[in-house]
Amino acid sequence: MSNRSLEKLFSPKSIAVIGASDKRNSVGRKIFKNLLHEKFKGKVYAVNPKHKKVQGQRSYPSVKAITGNIDLAVVAAPAKAVPQIIKECGEKNIHAVIVLSSGFSETGPEGKALENQMLQFAEEFQISIIGPNCLGVMRPCHHMNATFDNNVAYPGSMALVSQSGALSAGILDWAMNKKIGFSAIVSLGNCANTDFGDILDYLAHDPHTNSILLYIEGIKKPKQFISALRAAARIKPVIVIKSGKNKAGSRAALSHTGVLIGDDDVFDTALHRAGAVRVAQIEDLFSASEILTSAKKVTGNRLIIITNGGGAGVMAADRASELNIELAELTEPMVNALDKVLPSQWSHQNPIDIIGDATPERYHTVLDICNKDENIDGILTLLVPVAMSDPLTVAKTVIRDSKKFKKIIFASWLGEKQVKSSWKLFAKNHIPNFATPEKAVEAFSYLADYHHNQTLLMQKPAPYSDKFKPDISAAKKLFNEILSNNRFMLTTFESKKILKYFGIPVTETIEAETVEEAVNAAKSIGFPVVMKINSPSILHKSKVGGVFTQLKTEKEVRDSFKTLINNIKNQNLHADILGVTIEPQYPNIFDREIMVGMVHDRVFGPVISFGAGGTLVEIIQDKALALPPLNYFIADELISKARILKPASKFVTLSPDQKKNIIDILLRVSEMICEFPQIKEMDINPFILNEHGMIAVDARFVIQKPESEKPYSHLVIQ
Amino acid sequence: MSNRSLEKLFSPKSIAVIGASDKRNSVGRKIFKNLLHEKFKGKVYAVNPKHKKVQGQRSYPSVKAITGNIDLAVVAAPAKAVPQIIKECGEKNIHAVIVLSSGFSETGPEGKALENQMLQFAEEFQISIIGPNCLGVMRPCHHMNATFDNNVAYPGSMALVSQSGALSAGILDWAMNKKIGFSAIVSLGNCANTDFGDILDYLAHDPHTNSILLYIEGIKKPKQFISALRAAARIKPVIVIKSGKNKAGSRAALSHTGVLIGDDDVFDTALHRAGAVRVAQIEDLFSASEILTSAKKVTGNRLIIITNGGGAGVMAADRASELNIELAELTEPMVNALDKVLPSQWSHQNPIDIIGDATPERYHTVLDICNKDENIDGILTLLVPVAMSDPLTVAKTVIRDSKKFKKIIFASWLGEKQVKSSWKLFAKNHIPNFATPEKAVEAFSYLADYHHNQTLLMQKPAPYSDKFKPDISAAKKLFNEILSNNRFMLTTFESKKILKYFGIPVTETIEAETVEEAVNAAKSIGFPVVMKINSPSILHKSKVGGVFTQLKTEKEVRDSFKTLINNIKNQNLHADILGVTIEPQYPNIFDREIMVGMVHDRVFGPVISFGAGGTLVEIIQDKALALPPLNYFIADELISKARILKPASKFVTLSPDQKKNIIDILLRVSEMICEFPQIKEMDINPFILNEHGMIAVDARFVIQKPESEKPYSHLVIQ
Repeated sequence: MSNRSLEKLFSPKSIAVIGASDKRNSVGRKIFKNLLHEKFKGKVYAVNPKHKKVQGQRSYPSVKAITGNIDLAVVAAPAKAVPQIIKECGEKNIHAVIVLSSGFSETGPEGKALENQMLQFAEEFQISIIGPNCLGVMRPCHHMNATFDNNVAYPGSMALVSQSGALSAGILDWAMNKKIGFSAIVSLGNCANTDFGDILDYLAHDPHTNSILLYIEGIKKPKQFISALRAAARIKPVIVIKSGKNKAGSRAALSHTGVLIGDDDVFDTALHRAGAVRVAQIEDLFSASEILTSAKKVTGNRLIIITNGGGAGVMAADRASELNIELAELTEPMVNALDKVLPSQWSHQNPIDIIGDATPERYHTVLDICNKDENIDGILTLLVPVAMSDPLTVAKTVIRDSKKFKKIIFASWLGEKQVKSSWKLFAKNHIPNFATPEKAVEAFSYLADYHHNQTLLMQKPAPYSDKFKPDISAAKKLFNEILSNNRFMLTTFESKKILKYFGIPVTETIEAETVEEAVNAAKSIGFPVVMKINSPSILHKSKVGGVFTQLKTEKEVRDSFKTLINNIKNQNLHADILGVTIEPQYPNIFDREIMVGMVHDRVFGPVISFGAGGTLVEIIQDKALALPPLNYFIADELISKARILKPASKFVTLSPDQKKNIIDILLRVSEMICEFPQIKEMDINPFILNEHGMIAVDARFVIQKPESEKPYSHLVIQ
Repeated sequence: MSNRSLEKLFSPKSIAVIGASDKRNSVGRKIFKNLLHEKFKGKVYAVNPKHKKVQGQRSYPSVKAITGNIDLAVVAAPAKAVPQIIKECGEKNIHAVIVLSSGFSETGPEGKALENQMLQFAEEFQISIIGPNCLGVMRPCHHMNATFDNNVAYPGSMALVSQSGALSAGILDWAMNKKIGFSAIVSLGNCANTDFGDILDYLAHDPHTNSILLYIEGIKKPKQFISALRAAARIKPVIVIKSGKNKAGSRAALSHTGVLIGDDDVFDTALHRAGAVRVAQIEDLFSASEILTSAKKVTGNRLIIITNGGGAGVMAADRASELNIELAELTEPMVNALDKVLPSQWSHQNPIDIIGDATPERYHTVLDICNKDENIDGILTLLVPVAMSDPLTVAKTVIRDSKKFKKIIFASWLGEKQVKSSWKLFAKNHIPNFATPEKAVEAFSYLADYHHNQTLLMQKPAPYSDKFKPDISAAKKLFNEILSNNRFMLTTFESKKILKYFGIPVTETIEAETVEEAVNAAKSIGFPVVMKINSPSILHKSKVGGVFTQLKTEKEVRDSFKTLINNIKNQNLHADILGVTIEPQYPNIFDREIMVGMVHDRVFGPVISFGAGGTLVEIIQDKALALPPLNYFIADELISKARILKPASKFVTLSPDQKKNIIDILLRVSEMICEFPQIKEMDINPFILNEHGMIAVDARFVIQKPESEKPYSHLVIQ
C-alpha cells in the first residue's frame, strides 16, 4: 500500500462514482449525492453504462471513457461486476478505490472467490482498495463525503477508523449532536488489501489529525499493524476499542500457558507495548481523546481532587482506587498552607473538600497550592451546584488557572441544568471536562496509561549483555534430533537440558531405569527426593499416579519404584515408559511456585507469561504477559504485573538481588525464545522461588519445525 | 421515629420556617421563598424575632406565637440557637422538624455537644429531626419544596434519599434537563435521629413512590436499616449507591478472615441479602431504576441480542460476558425458524445479526420467535442508524411487540441525531432504552440481580434440622472457662474441641509434652504426621519454625521434637510453651485447601466467609460472604460464589454428595456462630476437601465476653 495512493484517497482532485444512480434508496444514489457537495472542490464523475445522466450530471459508460485523470474511484456496483471494474480502474491508472458493495468474503466461498479475483487485479495494477463491504471515507476538511451515510461530519481533529461501518455511523450520529468533529472517518469493511496498518501510516503524518480512534474486530496483517501503531503512537495518541474481548480462546494447547492465555490477553499486551491506549466502551473513546489531546502531559498517576461536596469527592476517590490511580498524599507543608486559607472544617485529606460555600477565589487558592506541589501529577476539580456557589464563575477561574499552570487541570461540574454553560466554556477553552467524577478519573487513567505506554514504547530491545553465553548449537542439535524423530514434546529431562544450555537454573534430574539406578540417583542428590515416571507420552504425571514425593530413605525409594511402575503398567496407558526420574524434593513450605510460560499467538507470535505456578495456575489465573524480546525494563514490568509477587500479598518482598536474579532468568528465557522459532509452547512450572534464588523444577516444551522468519521481527525498531 | 411524624414531614398542612429571612444569599430567604410556591396548598409561616415581616409575610417571634397547628418546622437558624428552637417546637406539639443549619457534629466536639443538646429535647418531645446539615426535603406531588436548592423537581415516581446534600442537588440538576421526576427527595445530612431506615419504612408504603434510590456514605442504625430495607425491597425496587467502597479496612484483626474481609464486602453482602440492587456509579441509579420499574420481571439472566449491526452486537456480548450475563444459546428449532425468515448471511448465533438492511417487519418476526423461546429471559434490540434503516419505524414495531409480548424487551438505538425521536418514543411508552449497548446490558444485569436477590430475600432461616445434636453446654463451659482466665485466643486443641461439639469433622490432634508422648501420639495416629508447637501465644506457628511436616518414622518424630522445641526456645519469644501437637499429615497433593472464616463486622455483626484456604488465602483473596443464619439455599449460594470451587477451575467438580456434605458443615458453622456471640473471629483453615469429604486441619478462635443480644436478630423475619 503506497502512501501516494492513500494521499489520493484522502485528498482526491477527481472522483469517479461507478454505479452512480438515481434509484431511490440505493447506495449509488446516496454516495453520488453526498459527493456532489457544493463545497467539495474536486471533480466528481458519474459512471453508469445504463444511463446518460445521473442526478442531472453526465454519466459515462466506464471510467475509461472519462477524459482527464481520476484520483479516486468509488464503486457501488453489484459484487459480480467489481473485478472487471477494478481492472478498468487499473487501466485508467487509478490507484485508490473504495468498494462499498457487499457480497464478498463476508457471505461465503462464492463471495470469497470474487474478492480474490478483485485482489488479483488490484495487485496487477497496484491499487489500494478500501473495503469491500464498507461505508466509505469522509474527509471533512476537504468537504469530501465518500460514504453513503446520512450525516456529514463536522471538521475536527480526531480520525476514526472502524472495521464496522454500522458502528462508525452510530458514533458519527452521536458526535453530530455534540458538534464533535473529525479529521477523517474511514470504514474499512473486509480489509481486503488495505488494513489498519496502512491507514495508521498515513494518519500518523496527517497534519489535520491530532488523535486516532480505532474500532477493531480483528487484524489481518498484525506485524504491519504493530509497526504502524508504534510509529503512529509515538507521534499522536492512538485510542483503541477492540470487540470480541471475551470470546473463548480458540487455541488447542498442550501447555498450561496455552490454556491460560487468551487471544485478547495477547492483543492487549501488544497494544500496550506499541504505546496505544485501550478503552473498554464506545463512549470512552471520546473522553480518552479529549484528555489525551490536551496539551499537558503527565509523568505519573498521582491525582489530587478538589471538591465543594464531599460525596462527589468520595465517588471520584472510589473510582481512582479501582483503577490503581494513586491519590496524592497531602504533605505537611501543604496541609499547613491549606489550613491558612480554608474554613476549619475542610477535609484535611485528598479529596480536598473545600466546603459547599466555596468561592471562585477559594478554588483558585487551592489550585495554586496544588499546582506547586511536586507530589501531584494531575488536578481534578469538582463542583456540585449548591445554592451558594456559582458554577460559571468557578469555571472561569479554573480556565484561567489552567492556562497559567504547569499541571493538567480537568473538571467535572455535576448536574446539567445549572452547569451546562460551564461545560460549554470548558470545551471552548480545551479544558477536559466530564459529566461525572468517575468518568473524569477514568479519563485521567487513560492519560497516565498513555504516558506509561510511551515509556514502554521507547524501550529498544537492548543487546543481550549477560555474562552467561548460551550453548545455542547444543540446543539446536537437540531440537533437530527430536524433530527428526518426529517427536514434538520434550521429556522433562530434555526440557531441562535446553534450559541449562541457556543458563536457566534447574533442579538436577537423574534418569533411572532400574531400582538400583534410582537408589544411587537418590543418594547422589540427597534425601528427600521426588520420583516421577519418565515417559515422553505421559502429559500429566501426577494424574496417573506417576509422582511420589518426600522419599526420605533408600527403602522408600525401593518401595516407591516398584509401586510406581506397577501403577502405570496396570493402567494400560500404552505409554512408552523409560523408567523414572529422581529429583530433589521441592517445593518446601516457604517456597513460592512460579510459572514462566510461552505460547505462540496466532496473530502476534510468541508471548511470554509470568505468574503463579504449581497447582495455582488455573485457579489464580495470574497471567502477566509480555512480547519478546524482553529487556530489563520490560522484564521488570512483567514481574510487577504478576499478582503472585505483588508486595500486597505480604508473602514475598523481593530484595533487589532477588529481583535482578529473576530478571536475568527472564532475559535468558526471552533469548531462548527469540533464538528458536522451533519452540511452539513452553511451561517452566514450577519455577521455585526461595531465599536461595530461582530454580526450575519441571518444564515442558512443545516444538515444531522452525519457520523461516524470526518471530519477533515486527517488534524491533528499525 | 413514628410513622405519623413522617406523614407530617411528607404531607404537612402547615409549615413554620424558623429563621425565614430577607437577607440576600441566605438559606433562610431561599427556603422560605421555595415554600411560598403558589401551588403548595398548606400554610407557611415565617418565624424570625428580628423582623415583623419577611418577604411580605407576617413574621412571628417564635413558633409558639403562631395560633393553630403546625405540622412541620424547618429550621434555618444559627446552630447555637437550634436546641432552644427544638424545645419550643416540642412545646408547640410539633413532631417533625427539618434542621438545615450546619455547625453540628460535622464540625467537631463543640458542634457535637450542640447536637446532643438538640437530641435531648427531640427525645423529650418525641420529635423526628431530618438533618442537621442537610438540603431539606422535596415532595413534588404536593408542590412542597422544603429545600434551599435552586431547582424544583418535577413530580415523578422515584424517591431519592441521600446523605450528601450536594450530591442530591447534582443529581436533581441532571434530572431536570432530562425531565426526570421524583416522588420525594430527602437529604439526610448528619442523620442525627432520623436515618435511612425510618425513611425507607415510610417510602415502602408511599403510593407515589415506585422505586427508591439511596446514596449512602455510612449507616448509623444498621439493624433497623437492614430490616427496613428488607421490608421495602419486597414491595418495590431499592437501588443503592454507596461511596467509600475502597476505603482501607479499619479492622484490627487477629484472624486471616479479619484481614481479608473489608467493611464494604460486608455491606455489599448485607445489601444483597436484603434484596436491594447495588450500582457502581451515579448514572447507573437511573438506568437501574428505569428497567426495574418496568412492569416485566425475569426469572433468569439468559439474554438474547437482536441487532442490525455486527459491531454493536459484539459490544453488548462482551459486556454480558463481563457481567456473567448468560447469552441464550440458539436452539435448533429456533435456528430453523430464523433461517426461514432471515437473509442467508444472518449471524446464526446470539447476537442475532439481522443485517444492515433490516426492515421493521424483520425485527418483528425475530422478536416474535425470541419471545416464544423458553430458553430466553430478556430481549435486547439494537439498532444502528445506517442509511437503509428507519429508526423510528423500527422503534414503533418494538413498542407494539413489547406491549403484546410476555418477555421484557429493551432497546439501545445507537447514535443521537437520527435516533433522538425514537428515544423519546421509547420513554413515553416505558420501554427501557439506553444510550449504548453496554449500558443496556448493565441494566439487564441489575434486573437479573434484583430478581435473584428477591429469591434470597424470601429465604427464611429454617429451623436447624440436622441429625447431629451439638453439645452446646460443653462448648459454653469451655468458652466460659477460657474467658474466666482472661484468655481470648483458643489453642488449636481447644478450637478443635469446639468444632467437634458442633459436629464439624476435625483431624485428630494429640497434645504431647515430652518426646515419648509425641512418639506414642504419632504411632496412634499413624505416619506420616505433622508436629506443631503447642502454645496459646504463638499466632503464626510456621513463621517461627514451629511446624514440621511429613514425619514418617519414630526417629524423625524424636529428632523433630528436640529441634522444634530448641528452635522456639532460642528465639526468646516469651511464649508459653505447652509442648507440641501431633496431627496426621495434610494436605496431600490432591487435597483442596479451603478456609471457612467468621468475622464480626462493626456495623452488621457476624459474617461467614468461604473460599480458598491454606497459603492461598491472601493471594487469591477468594472471599465469598454470607450473613448468618445460613440455610441450605444461602449456603449453596455461598459455595457457588467461591472461586476456589468454581467448575471453571477444572480442579474440582463437586458431586451432589460432596456439596451436601459441605453445606451441612456450613450450616453447623452457622449454628455455632449464632449460638455464641462469644465468638469474635474465627478461621477454620485449612479445611481439607478431598474425595473422603471435608475435614478441619487447623482452626483459630478469638473470643470475647458475650453481648446481651443474639447478633443476628436483625436478619430474622418477624
